[in-house]
Amino acid sequence: MTEEIERARLIRGIAEAARAAARTVAKATAQHRTRGLTGISEAIYRHRAAILAANARDMAAARDAGTSAALLDRLLLDDKRITGLARAVADIAAAPEIVGRVDRTETRPNGLEIQRVRIPLGVIAMIYEARPNVTTDAAALCLKAGNACILRGGREALESNRALLAAVHDGLVTARLPPEAVQLVPMTDREAIADLVKLDELIDLCIPRGGEGLIRFVAEHARVPVIKHYKGVCHVFVHAAADAELALAIIENAKVSRPGVCNAVETVLVDRPIARKLIPRLVARLAPTVELRGDDTVCALGGDAVRPATEDDWYAEYLDLILAVRVVDGIDAAIAHIERYGSDHTESIITKDRDAGERFLREVNSSTVMVNASTRFADGGELGLGAEIGISTTRLHAYGPMGAEGLTTTKFVVRGTGQVRS
Amino acid sequence: MTEEIERARLIRGIAEAARAAARTVAKATAQHRTRGLTGISEAIYRHRAAILAANARDMAAARDAGTSAALLDRLLLDDKRITGLARAVADIAAAPEIVGRVDRTETRPNGLEIQRVRIPLGVIAMIYEARPNVTTDAAALCLKAGNACILRGGREALESNRALLAAVHDGLVTARLPPEAVQLVPMTDREAIADLVKLDELIDLCIPRGGEGLIRFVAEHARVPVIKHYKGVCHVFVHAAADAELALAIIENAKVSRPGVCNAVETVLVDRPIARKLIPRLVARLAPTVELRGDDTVCALGGDAVRPATEDDWYAEYLDLILAVRVVDGIDAAIAHIERYGSDHTESIITKDRDAGERFLREVNSSTVMVNASTRFADGGELGLGAEIGISTTRLHAYGPMGAEGLTTTKFVVRGTGQVRS
Repeated sequence: MTEEIERARLIRGIAEAARAAARTVAKATAQHRTRGLTGISEAIYRHRAAILAANARDMAAARDAGTSAALLDRLLLDDKRITGLARAVADIAAAPEIVGRVDRTETRPNGLEIQRVRIPLGVIAMIYEARPNVTTDAAALCLKAGNACILRGGREALESNRALLAAVHDGLVTARLPPEAVQLVPMTDREAIADLVKLDELIDLCIPRGGEGLIRFVAEHARVPVIKHYKGVCHVFVHAAADAELALAIIENAKVSRPGVCNAVETVLVDRPIARKLIPRLVARLAPTVELRGDDTVCALGGDAVRPATEDDWYAEYLDLILAVRVVDGIDAAIAHIERYGSDHTESIITKDRDAGERFLREVNSSTVMVNASTRFADGGELGLGAEIGISTTRLHAYGPMGAEGLTTTKFVVRGTGQVRS
Repeated sequence: MTEEIERARLIRGIAEAARAAARTVAKATAQHRTRGLTGISEAIYRHRAAILAANARDMAAARDAGTSAALLDRLLLDDKRITGLARAVADIAAAPEIVGRVDRTETRPNGLEIQRVRIPLGVIAMIYEARPNVTTDAAALCLKAGNACILRGGREALESNRALLAAVHDGLVTARLPPEAVQLVPMTDREAIADLVKLDELIDLCIPRGGEGLIRFVAEHARVPVIKHYKGVCHVFVHAAADAELALAIIENAKVSRPGVCNAVETVLVDRPIARKLIPRLVARLAPTVELRGDDTVCALGGDAVRPATEDDWYAEYLDLILAVRVVDGIDAAIAHIERYGSDHTESIITKDRDAGERFLREVNSSTVMVNASTRFADGGELGLGAEIGISTTRLHAYGPMGAEGLTTTKFVVRGTGQVRS
């Protein structure tokens, strides 16, 4: 019990310090925040040896614990990756300023000038798992948007995150910004998360990134608003009027270029009129590397290379070289399938028919909808947001890839000359 | 126990029907939704007699229960008010379309055209107290933005709300829109609210409007995202370089024109150099109608007409003809006071010094900040949003007055010609 109280007290102390630092960061000029970001980027290069040493300790412990190769790869920092982290922060420093940006101006009939001006959210809590790059990316994006942040990374990466945080603090202090603007929760148990996300008077937003279990845990315990990203069950719909070669190239890219990420395609829907022509070519192209699971028609057309799909396959986020394929009767059936099984992440229609394309773009309300493009473009950088802090699949505040702008809100600014209301 | 299960089942049924209706409404054209809104406005006129009769039953029951005059006035519907409800819906029908609006367009170096397009949120739960006008206002704003809504009004207004809902349904059906797009929760106990706001897979947003108790109850039980409006402790800061007459006119308007609303001023901060000149005039102007509570300096300058303020007065949302007045040492002290005691609603600085005004507008991050204008302009209509569904004092998704646009989000629309990601 004493331990629980002590933990809650410590976490509240972190959040109170973050709140105070957030006020300072919000009032700093853009140039001042940019100096902080440049300072962090340079400090990451300077601290390279310490970061590598800390990461080696994390890697050794993870290997001893029998961690999977995929997870070890996510945890690993090497020279090239550290350079990547420093460059990402420098890119954020160089990106256009958001805080203070005027989004709209209007003069009312009574002469009042009304503007909507971008301001920081305040304090962001970022809860994530193994990847240590989130530590510096999130710190930099929060600072860019004028916020303080509280980071709670995974247990496996604690030493790496501490070393990265030391570099971040070095950079902040060099620029005379408060180090409390970026803090790390040192406890890696879930109870610490529960304590943190209850502090709704101190924290303005929580962004969990990681497996579904983590995100559900946060959603269940939070009093603080949460931006969620459960999963990416992305679809490509090959319309009857598709260019078959273009469709195959996009499907291959969407599945094979990086199967373990959330914007990889998981289900291909094929319009019945084009199925006989397309499916044998799809099987010939993908079956050597991708496990295909199809409905009866796909199995019949695809032969032995296709396994029968079950109902679960339509819901599946494989994150692997597996693809579900289904034949549907037209665009309405494709949209109905997406509404039923989709995750509001990303869907693409392949068609030469302009009307069909526009209808799909209009009627499908996933966070990213595409015509004749690979789902792999659903990414903050590719969509022009600059760096990305996550992808939201819920509609409040941010929907789809979320960059520094998503870490701000707008206030109303009203300039008068003595107006009173009648 | 059986009763609880039955209630939860009924509420889930309402939410499931709303979810299905939301899909239909989202796919309807702008013209179709406008026909629905026009139909609702006309039906309110047609149902006038039934609405008046139902309201008379609510009023009689409220009088028997010893309800206060202020609450009775909020509950009352008369001919003029019903005309007002119908006109408000017609105004929403005539306002510019939001769904489908393109907020940004960009072409990437690889030729992908990226747009951000406004789409509905889905299902909105609106939880409110005595005012029956919220029933038709909320229904119309939600429909305008392409959403379905679930309304849960106060016990006192249940008969009135049922009669208004009958008019809304009449209008929807006339326009061949599903009546399930606007539903009323018939249970008026708080447990029904708790059941409703847990349904995060069916409801996209909850907006509670009413007393702090109601809002805290919703925030505590919600799994659904909540947009909160706790209270409005609005400030006017009279800067040393203010025009005294202009300051007095604004303060009087901000306090007296409608003291019971959230954008009325509650605390006036007076810069020390102007205090000796301003405070006697402020007292002379307001003391006949407004109870003044001041710090020591204000009491000394204002004489018997000013009562000493306590610490609680700086936090108070009086919603009455009471005003707290404090002398501060310059703009920094004024901002510090607002940060400590304010509610992030609305603050106004009165000054002829342009730099001081701009600094206040920049450094104060309440949802509405003003220079030389009455706080009473913090209202969706006055700020150019059209009708208002509420005022948010938390920063996620919407901050400040919230109109139909606040009931939408944006999706990314990507048009390609076969692009794949390298």
